[in-house]
Amino acid sequence: MTKYVYFFGAGQAEGSATMKNLLGGKGANLAEMTNLGSPVPPGFTITTEACTYYDQHGKSYPASLKQEVEESIKRTEQIMGYGFDDPERPLLFSVRSGARQSMPGMMETVLNIGLTSKTIPAMIAQTGNERFVYDAYRRLITMYADVVMEKAAGREPTEEREIRKLLEHELEEMKKNRKVTQDTELSGEDLKQLSEKYKQIIRKEMGEPFPDDAFKQLWGGIGAVFQSWNGKRAVAYRKIENIPDDWGTAVNVQAMVFGNMGDNSATGVAFTRNPATGENVFYGEWLPNAQGEDVVAGIRTPNPINEAGKTEDTAHLPSLEQSMPELYRELDQIQQSLEKHYQDMQDIEFTIQNGKLWMLQTRVGKRNGPAAVRMAVEMLESGQIDKKTALMRVKPNQLDELLHPMVDPVEELKAKELAKGLPAGPGGATGQIVFTADDAEAWAKNKRKVILVRNETSPEDVHGMHAAAAILTAKGGMTSHAALVARGWGKCCIVGCSALKINVAKRELTVNNVTLHEGDWITLNGTKGRVYNGKLGLKDPDLENNEHYLKLMKVADEIRTLGIRTNADRPEDAGKARAFGAEGIGLCRTEHMFFNPERIKAIREMIVAENVEARRKAVMKLLPYQRQDFEGILEAMHNLPVTIRLLDPPLHEFVNLEEKQLLELASELKIDPDKLRARVQSLHESNPMLGHRGCRLGITYPEITEMQARAICEAAANLTAKGIKVCPEIMIPVVGELKEFEHQATIVRSIAAEVMKEKKVSFEYTVGTMIELPRACLMADKIGAEAEFFSFGTNDLTQTTFGFSRDDIGGFINDYIELRILPQDPFNSLDQNGVGQLVEMGVKKGRSANPRLKIGICGEHGGDPDSIDFFHRAGLNYVSCSPFRVPIARLAAAHAAIKNKK
Amino acid sequence: MTKYVYFFGAGQAEGSATMKNLLGGKGANLAEMTNLGSPVPPGFTITTEACTYYDQHGKSYPASLKQEVEESIKRTEQIMGYGFDDPERPLLFSVRSGARQSMPGMMETVLNIGLTSKTIPAMIAQTGNERFVYDAYRRLITMYADVVMEKAAGREPTEEREIRKLLEHELEEMKKNRKVTQDTELSGEDLKQLSEKYKQIIRKEMGEPFPDDAFKQLWGGIGAVFQSWNGKRAVAYRKIENIPDDWGTAVNVQAMVFGNMGDNSATGVAFTRNPATGENVFYGEWLPNAQGEDVVAGIRTPNPINEAGKTEDTAHLPSLEQSMPELYRELDQIQQSLEKHYQDMQDIEFTIQNGKLWMLQTRVGKRNGPAAVRMAVEMLESGQIDKKTALMRVKPNQLDELLHPMVDPVEELKAKELAKGLPAGPGGATGQIVFTADDAEAWAKNKRKVILVRNETSPEDVHGMHAAAAILTAKGGMTSHAALVARGWGKCCIVGCSALKINVAKRELTVNNVTLHEGDWITLNGTKGRVYNGKLGLKDPDLENNEHYLKLMKVADEIRTLGIRTNADRPEDAGKARAFGAEGIGLCRTEHMFFNPERIKAIREMIVAENVEARRKAVMKLLPYQRQDFEGILEAMHNLPVTIRLLDPPLHEFVNLEEKQLLELASELKIDPDKLRARVQSLHESNPMLGHRGCRLGITYPEITEMQARAICEAAANLTAKGIKVCPEIMIPVVGELKEFEHQATIVRSIAAEVMKEKKVSFEYTVGTMIELPRACLMADKIGAEAEFFSFGTNDLTQTTFGFSRDDIGGFINDYIELRILPQDPFNSLDQNGVGQLVEMGVKKGRSANPRLKIGICGEHGGDPDSIDFFHRAGLNYVSCSPFRVPIARLAAAHAAIKNKK
Repeated sequence: MTKYVYFFGAGQAEGSATMKNLLGGKGANLAEMTNLGSPVPPGFTITTEACTYYDQHGKSYPASLKQEVEESIKRTEQIMGYGFDDPERPLLFSVRSGARQSMPGMMETVLNIGLTSKTIPAMIAQTGNERFVYDAYRRLITMYADVVMEKAAGREPTEEREIRKLLEHELEEMKKNRKVTQDTELSGEDLKQLSEKYKQIIRKEMGEPFPDDAFKQLWGGIGAVFQSWNGKRAVAYRKIENIPDDWGTAVNVQAMVFGNMGDNSATGVAFTRNPATGENVFYGEWLPNAQGEDVVAGIRTPNPINEAGKTEDTAHLPSLEQSMPELYRELDQIQQSLEKHYQDMQDIEFTIQNGKLWMLQTRVGKRNGPAAVRMAVEMLESGQIDKKTALMRVKPNQLDELLHPMVDPVEELKAKELAKGLPAGPGGATGQIVFTADDAEAWAKNKRKVILVRNETSPEDVHGMHAAAAILTAKGGMTSHAALVARGWGKCCIVGCSALKINVAKRELTVNNVTLHEGDWITLNGTKGRVYNGKLGLKDPDLENNEHYLKLMKVADEIRTLGIRTNADRPEDAGKARAFGAEGIGLCRTEHMFFNPERIKAIREMIVAENVEARRKAVMKLLPYQRQDFEGILEAMHNLPVTIRLLDPPLHEFVNLEEKQLLELASELKIDPDKLRARVQSLHESNPMLGHRGCRLGITYPEITEMQARAICEAAANLTAKGIKVCPEIMIPVVGELKEFEHQATIVRSIAAEVMKEKKVSFEYTVGTMIELPRACLMADKIGAEAEFFSFGTNDLTQTTFGFSRDDIGGFINDYIELRILPQDPFNSLDQNGVGQLVEMGVKKGRSANPRLKIGICGEHGGDPDSIDFFHRAGLNYVSCSPFRVPIARLAAAHAAIKNKK
Repeated sequence: MTKYVYFFGAGQAEGSATMKNLLGGKGANLAEMTNLGSPVPPGFTITTEACTYYDQHGKSYPASLKQEVEESIKRTEQIMGYGFDDPERPLLFSVRSGARQSMPGMMETVLNIGLTSKTIPAMIAQTGNERFVYDAYRRLITMYADVVMEKAAGREPTEEREIRKLLEHELEEMKKNRKVTQDTELSGEDLKQLSEKYKQIIRKEMGEPFPDDAFKQLWGGIGAVFQSWNGKRAVAYRKIENIPDDWGTAVNVQAMVFGNMGDNSATGVAFTRNPATGENVFYGEWLPNAQGEDVVAGIRTPNPINEAGKTEDTAHLPSLEQSMPELYRELDQIQQSLEKHYQDMQDIEFTIQNGKLWMLQTRVGKRNGPAAVRMAVEMLESGQIDKKTALMRVKPNQLDELLHPMVDPVEELKAKELAKGLPAGPGGATGQIVFTADDAEAWAKNKRKVILVRNETSPEDVHGMHAAAAILTAKGGMTSHAALVARGWGKCCIVGCSALKINVAKRELTVNNVTLHEGDWITLNGTKGRVYNGKLGLKDPDLENNEHYLKLMKVADEIRTLGIRTNADRPEDAGKARAFGAEGIGLCRTEHMFFNPERIKAIREMIVAENVEARRKAVMKLLPYQRQDFEGILEAMHNLPVTIRLLDPPLHEFVNLEEKQLLELASELKIDPDKLRARVQSLHESNPMLGHRGCRLGITYPEITEMQARAICEAAANLTAKGIKVCPEIMIPVVGELKEFEHQATIVRSIAAEVMKEKKVSFEYTVGTMIELPRACLMADKIGAEAEFFSFGTNDLTQTTFGFSRDDIGGFINDYIELRILPQDPFNSLDQNGVGQLVEMGVKKGRSANPRLKIGICGEHGGDPDSIDFFHRAGLNYVSCSPFRVPIARLAAAHAAIKNKK
């Protein structure tokens, strides 16, 4: 005969943690904790098989269930020394659902089952607290009416008759009548009256009375949980999460214990290690004569659990260690055994009822980034866990907290939030508002910390962005110009903060009715996207001396198979990334190098040149600058590969001129302003993203490619001559067709041969291409036959595959995420279902033409852990991300190697 | 032993038309014509196998070749009654290459072989024409030096010593000395001197003399042809055309005949039917005592070949029929037998040498569109050819000539071409220049024919474009706004005419130093993209009475399996397309309907609305207009399906306002101009193509979808109530993800159910989607499970797959085509290799989810014959194109069915 009920209590449980499929997650954990000898309030779990039976048999229970339940109730009563429905020493039960996989938001719970007119007097007598008993009673009535009578019965609540609302309305009326604002201010008599009122409403609205029978309440609760499995919400949730309908839910029936039964009762929440620092000390809070929610709600200030946990502020408060030393020792032993058993820091809840300690829950405790790293490494060193487990204990993104100054969390809690935006660059920053890049630079020169506030930024703002402590924009998404640049520098940045109304002329901004002026202080939390008024404190990271971090990274590097490179355009960034562990540069953009005032003149001269000779002459003026740039970056990355992308942006980005600038330029270049204006206008594009850029430029203006190839090759030759080993990888951007690649590669290769001959030096280099267009993926078998490497540009590939301009998705992306049309912004985490198909196709086709093709990815997704997992599975050789994401990528790559181990 | 030489002559040839692989195209045809009994000058073909032997054996000939050649020379001499290298009656040969497949531009030819100091005197004596003989001689020397001595010898001609140039320079010098401008003005003595000079130059430059030996000349020519197979040009050509290197070329050696040997000699070119009209009459031109090139060169006016071919202008000229009646009869019989044999109109060349008729060539004759249709239908009706052959005889694009008024070809020949642009809308038009849409409308109201000249057009110009006889723009490509709109209307249009410099303020334009003003007449040939100064005559089509066209179309419809629909937004266009044979509307855009002044106000009101209620109110003002639009179009297409696309363009297209208009609108809508300006600015997009458009609009503003769905459904209900059968197919644009489609389809379906209930009428409709993003193709298995139809939008799919903005490719597409990076503009003809993969994937995945999924295509490629062939192979159900492309698409679809028959 199938066993449908699994008992747990008094150190012995019929189930265990391995039986999640049958007992659900919660039931299995209660059984496990019981078996560990923890004093768990006894009870029993009705299996998921019973749920399936119930569903398949017209909502009827298996024949044997009633008897099994009754037997388990008896065993519970024996342990507790109380009786369910007993008029003298009444025992109350909780009824909770518990599926195989957590389904938050569809959990049904009914507490305090067993309170009836028969048992209430004994409860009052026992506790000496009428208010407590009637509060429990009115909560039971509310939950039961909502969960059992209305929701689980499948009644469609109408707006007028949703029973929970009606009851809550009654509670509000009562408070109004009593002229109080808090529930806790109502007296026992008030709550008693309220309970009677509740029962009247239920009879009227639901057509049947609230049951005054303990067993009827219990079976009602059990049935409600089973029925809730097929509730609309649960079905919808399962569909989204791909949970099979036939899993069913278990029901956990457990004895209620109360921490508010008097002075030898108490309740508390604790962690087996400090969740804020990771330090290996027992840490927690408790309150005498209180319920669990009182600790959490913050109405009463909780006490520190032990002497070690006391701070200056809490030194005067009584610790559990002082107040109940024996119970504390019992608790301390339990927490140690729990951590040892689960091999991870536990978050535990306990209640002391009349001097008896009960463990209500243990679960893996949440922790911040530094704590996660410390715990993982210390547990690894103590031999508690192995390397893979240690790595998996730290979420890659948690490392972000170790890399940047953070807003002081205590100050942040109290600070006034001005607005929210998108968390584009991590960390915290505080500074004085400026509204232009030039102001940012000027103020910074005078040693002032500034935050540059713009509607959006452009390449011409870069000097000011660099000078600013942080950047805040009203427009733009996670891959807007400001976000990309800031992330590359590891600079705090918030974008798309649409509540900002900026008036640059007046040098002021208005945000949610607050007006701020140039020079006013604000603080940004770039990790969360929060803007605060005023100057908050910051905490600095100290990575070089963080031994836990360094050890963890070492282990990650042992495990991972994916290479990690960085995206960097300047020697300083390259050096920083190298320190963070980057094994090369995956993307060195060359266009930023052009915006320097001396250089931009040459490129503008080139743009307005009337013939090839004049154009070549202008372009060649850039050669010495570019050669110097490349020498710097190749030297900084000596012995490591450096992927240098040839000029990518459309030319109009270099001649974004106001009328005054245009006239100046015309006089400087000695050309007719009308001609210049016409040329600038002719460069205008309707959709620059899909315009005359990338290799299209190099094909129509081959002299640009020639100049850049020469600059790279001369730099490589010069360094090689000095005995410095360099590995340039020259990357042709925006290729969609083999012949485009061939055209450009031919130029590069012939220039390389020329330079080697001229300089009498030989160096290694490769020519490859960026795969950033759907057509490049479709044609990768052709392109792969000629290119020496591929580097996926998943930003642009996402733009073209979705037809989403990353600059323009602000108009709809929030609606898309709210409506669950997309699970997330595909520029943050790769769209594996759609864009991922093209990446896989590109890899497969590319390798079909050239099995040894080196393939990487240099889009923003290179720093996103989920995307890194995908790239690992897709068989890429490396990912490249901004310098400050390198540690995160290293850990994520290790995770991917562990998760996808065959 | 392998036979390497195939003789032909005197009615008998050793080869035939089936032996192209061995004899090459030319050799096989000469053999075939000989076998047909035509008097072909005798000769022989050296096989391609000899060429292969030559290549594989270090440039040496098969041992037996010499003897075979000598035997064939003897047979030729016997037939001609002349002897090669004979000092009395010398016979001359031509030597020509001839590969299996025509390779124009790499053909090597040497004429007049056999002219030496030994044979020249006899030639002069025979012809009595020293000038003729020395002219032939100096031509032989030039060709021989170039083809045999320099080119085939593999010498790399340098710029200084390219022998042909040196000799031509000498000719120029001679003409300068003689103070004449034409070669023909040089005397026999001059040419004799020139020949001597040539020989001196050759000896000096090439280090060896021009051979004065007939056989040496002959073998030199043969070897030159063989070597030319591996010349640089030929190898490059074969690589492009995928012709295997081991095919080799044949060599044709043929007796020379001369039509300029006196008054009983003549030459001519003729067609077996009239190539201009298709009429079944022998048609041609001839000249007495002349060479073939004289007829073609146009220096002498040729005579009509027969009495039937005489016109008013040529009535006074002697026909061959009059002048040489017997030879004419012989020729007439030959042409009849040739057409009968080849079953197609033949273009023939003949020469009469001393009263003897020689046939030099027969090949399929070129013809214009109307002629092609007439010949195909008449040959079908006479039983000469079957239906499939008749259909294949007309190129689909040739039908264009039947559909539009054309510039009078005679006038066009004489007209001054102002500039060239892209042929965006076919046909011809003449009119007075106007520079604004409003002017176009105003002038047209005054019954003036105008041509609207703009830098580019926008939706706000549509009224003026409609009023104009033609449209001419300086910017934009084949799928720019002007091109799309014009093509939809079948209106003459030229775009991207970059030579135009337009000054709207001055109402003038400058083009290649000509300045034209408002009101000046110009003429456009939109089929060729030519702009002419002044007013040229036009010729109107008369399709309804063109019985040949109607019959051909009927046969096409019998054969094709692909459905043909049209893209049309207005009832008039729909009606026109129906007359052209469209079987439904594949794309009815709804946005053009919004630009009417009354309506645009409502949509602007919607755009600036501050909340959902205000927005809904504004949107609903459009309901009656849209309902009326849909009633019109659904009624025009009763019984046929109409695919209506919901609103597609980004909202900023509707608020493209100048400051003055903005202020007016603000006062009209009673809102703060600053607020309006801010709203308009907030709608600005960096890349509108990838912006907030298509279903993204419908998702963020569901009330737009609701209004449009309601308008369609109410229109359908109203017509159904009147007994008119309607078949609306509601299309959700720019879908990339199933959930987008579901969101919109749910709205449409619930509105449809509501309307049917309200109106108590039931009608059929379907909801499908446009597949125009790479992601839609990648996810087509998911989307196909819910959508009732797919319609490929290959314009946008091309944009996103290539990352090409169709508005911006002007900057590089010409370079791309010149450099052969792309074979053609992918917006004109589908990129089958790249974008085609996505189309195939979309079809395969879509049908995997729903085998009965209806799939069409509504991009501009729907009217392109090559693309139609691809869509047929990809398994689409229909293509949809602009009304004037419908006949072309019908024929192209028939071609596809024939070509791809298994």
